[in-house]
Parts: sequence; structure tokens; C-alpha cells
Amino acid sequence: MITSSTNGQIKNVLKLQKSTKARKEQGVFVAEGLRLFREIPKERLVKAYVTEEFFKKHEELLEDVEYEFVAPNVLKEASDTKTPQGILAIVKMFHYELDDIKGRGEPCLMVLENLQDPGNLGTIIRTSEGAGVSGILMSEDTVDIYNPKVVRSTMGSIFRMPFVILPMKEIFAFLKKEGITSYGAHLDGKDFYMEDYKKACAFFIGNEGNGLTEETTKKVNKAIKIPMYGQVESLNAAIAGTVLMYEAMRQRRQE
Amino acid sequence: MITSSTNGQIKNVLKLQKSTKARKEQGVFVAEGLRLFREIPKERLVKAYVTEEFFKKHEELLEDVEYEFVAPNVLKEASDTKTPQGILAIVKMFHYELDDIKGRGEPCLMVLENLQDPGNLGTIIRTSEGAGVSGILMSEDTVDIYNPKVVRSTMGSIFRMPFVILPMKEIFAFLKKEGITSYGAHLDGKDFYMEDYKKACAFFIGNEGNGLTEETTKKVNKAIKIPMYGQVESLNAAIAGTVLMYEAMRQRRQE
Repeated sequence: MITSSTNGQIKNVLKLQKSTKARKEQGVFVAEGLRLFREIPKERLVKAYVTEEFFKKHEELLEDVEYEFVAPNVLKEASDTKTPQGILAIVKMFHYELDDIKGRGEPCLMVLENLQDPGNLGTIIRTSEGAGVSGILMSEDTVDIYNPKVVRSTMGSIFRMPFVILPMKEIFAFLKKEGITSYGAHLDGKDFYMEDYKKACAFFIGNEGNGLTEETTKKVNKAIKIPMYGQVESLNAAIAGTVLMYEAMRQRRQE
Repeated sequence: MITSSTNGQIKNVLKLQKSTKARKEQGVFVAEGLRLFREIPKERLVKAYVTEEFFKKHEELLEDVEYEFVAPNVLKEASDTKTPQGILAIVKMFHYELDDIKGRGEPCLMVLENLQDPGNLGTIIRTSEGAGVSGILMSEDTVDIYNPKVVRSTMGSIFRMPFVILPMKEIFAFLKKEGITSYGAHLDGKDFYMEDYKKACAFFIGNEGNGLTEETTKKVNKAIKIPMYGQVESLNAAIAGTVLMYEAMRQRRQE
């Protein structure tokens, strides 16, 4: 049992929680808590750190899993949450190809440009799975998808939603090659509800403070506007994404 | 100019930031930042605390406003944010009647039961204004609407969206009296997109971890289910609220 936070493995967990660079170098990330742990694909799970209490309750979850006992106070120190649930796992990163995000049928993609809030990114990934989005494209300056807060707020969707990180230029090249119509929010855009999203579509969501860059706004095929009442000038990035995805889903289900 | 955080007014600001009880006793709350400050209705503004730098840039905003200069480091201590913008204001609480939340035309209400995350509540208030929701009802155990994080995430909608806090029993009595159909999420509910929301409707959103209470689930007129693909079992509270509100808006705009 690991009883000290100066233990080399625990020090490494802490590094993986905090540093994008360390995660990239090792090709792994951290997933915490019972719910997330249950959803980790077995072949991706490198190692689990558990408290004895957790083990007693959930022994069956640890069959065929490499694990090590950790004292509760040490696990707490290694945790990114205030109330850790007695389990923390090291998970291998995903490596998707562009073909993986196309899904079956007409693709429906989310494209995230320089999104910075981990909670927003995680929520968009979770909602994307729920709405039946086929995959996610991210600009290279988007917040790290393996940031612990992102991982947590995906509620497990990070293990299932295919995603590819690319320079914006290559994102546009891919969409063009595949004949996927790109939609970006703009104040002078067309009423978003007037468009047909049953065909291959990609919804662009920009940075929380600044929206899409000017260059991207110019490059998307269609500028759209989510109708807003009152004095509201914009919606939160994850909220705007939700309106777009679920309208596409609604239209597609009517077919 | 206030140059010390032991100043009585600053100590009171800090109390108002942290304590629901202090806010209730004084009937005021704190709003921070340039954007929120611009949107405060003049008759509600009690007093502003500003840095000299802010004053130089935005003198016109402080006309007819009672204000006092504060040293930047003191304002920072009184602030609930990491990067305060040089302005912080004391604002009088709102007191709406049930008639205020009915709006013009057919009411469309959000009913929040024991919502606990300030970011979720703020985002729902902001999105409600955008979607043209007529008003918000909250159970008494919902997170305090005047919590600084709620205020901030409304992006100003808190100054415009009418809301009433009531025991759930009285909420149901009001909906019944007004002939408003209540909709609550349930795993065995009817496909949410099959319903007509052009008539008076109220969407119930429950606690982040537990959803709606059993009692409330039994009492709502109709159990609905937002379609979800993949292995997603539920959506974030603000996200679910968004799907509901924007579908009602879409239907209503077609009239």
C-alpha cells in the first residue's frame, strides 16, 4: 500500500493531473471516480489506484485490472477533486483518424476553435454523444481534452466520442474534401432554424470571450444566428452548441 | 478613497459576497465588472466602488451614481473574481409577483427544483431570457440566485428575468390555477419532441445529482424524455433546460 505522497507513482499522478506536457510525453491521462472508472474501456486502462474501502465495495470492478492500494489521505492529495471517491486510474490516450469522426450516414460534426473553458469542452463532448454527433474537431489552441476537469465533465463520453485535433486550415480542407457544409455563428447570420441539417454538417463554436476568429467566420459556408429574445447578445458556448446539435438531431429523426 | 480592507464598507461587501443571510438581511447583492455594471437598472443601484483607473476610462457610466474610490488591491480583496475589472456595485434585490412571470401571450416557465450549481442556475437564467421564457420559478432549496457566481453567469439577465421562489406545493398550485401544463424529465417519459409547447407550459429541471424528487415527478402533468444516443444517461441540468426552452421557442416562432 502506498502511504506517502512522496511515492514516485503518486508524484507522477500529480504531474499527469497538472501538466499537459507530462500527459503528452507519457501518452496517458487520469480519470477519477466510480462512474468514470466503470466506463473506461478495459484495453485503455493502464493502472488503478484504489483505497481499501473502495476495493471492499467494488472488488468485481478490479478483476483483471492492475491496481495498487493507496492510503485515503494520499489518494486525496493525488486527486483533482475535493471529494475523491477512492479510485483514480491512468488511461491511455485515444488516437482517432479523420475517418473515425464521420460516423455512419451523413456526418454531423462539432468544430471547436480555441475553446478555453474545461467545463464547456467536457459538456460539449457529453452533449455531442447524446445528440448523436458523429465526431469532434478541435483547433490546436483549444483547451487540452485530457485536462482533468474536461475528463470529469464529459461524464464518460470522452471514452466514446471520436475527436481529432488539427490546425484550422486542415479542418477546412477535410470538410471541403468530404462535402460537409460548415455553419458558423454570426450576428448578421441567417435564422438558424431555416436551414436543413439532415445533410452532412459541421457546427463551429468559438472561444468563450471572442467567438470565432474573423478568418474562420469568413471561411465557413454559411453564417447562421440562433434567435435570441430580450437583451441577450450571445449564449454560453456549450449552450449554443446544444441548440445547434439538438436541432440537427430533431430534423434527422423526422426522416 | 478607501485604502484598507478593514474599512467597514469593504468588510460589508465581503460579507455580501459570502453570506446569503447577510444579503437577505440587507436586501441587496453584489454585481461586479463592466458588463454587468452597464446593465444594472439605475433605480436598483445603491452604490458603486470603483478604482481611479476605471473612473478615468468610464466616467460617463458613473453620472448620477453614488460611488466611492477604492484602491485596486482593496477592490481585489472585496472581489469574488480572480481578475476584477475595477468596478463592483451594491444592487437592490428584486421582488416579483407571480403575475410578473406570466409574460404576454402563453406563459413559458422554467421551474427549478433544488438546483445546486451556481453556474447552472446563472446559465439557465441567461438562456431563459434568450429563448423568450416568460419567467422562472424556484424551489426554496435552490442555490441562492444572488450568489456572486450565479449573478456573474447570468451575464446581466438577472436584472431582467422575472423569478419567484416558492415551496413546490405552491408552485404546483399556481400552475394548476393558471392552466399551465407541467413537463418533467423521466427515463420512461414520452419523446419530448412529440409534444406541443405553443400552449402555456412549464419545464421542470431537478437537482444535478438526483434529478427531480419522486414527489415532483408524480405531480407533473407529463413525463417527457429528451432523446439521447450513445451511452449517455442524462444531460447537464442547464443543457437539458436549453433543449427544452429552445424547442418551445422554435414551435412558437412557427405560429
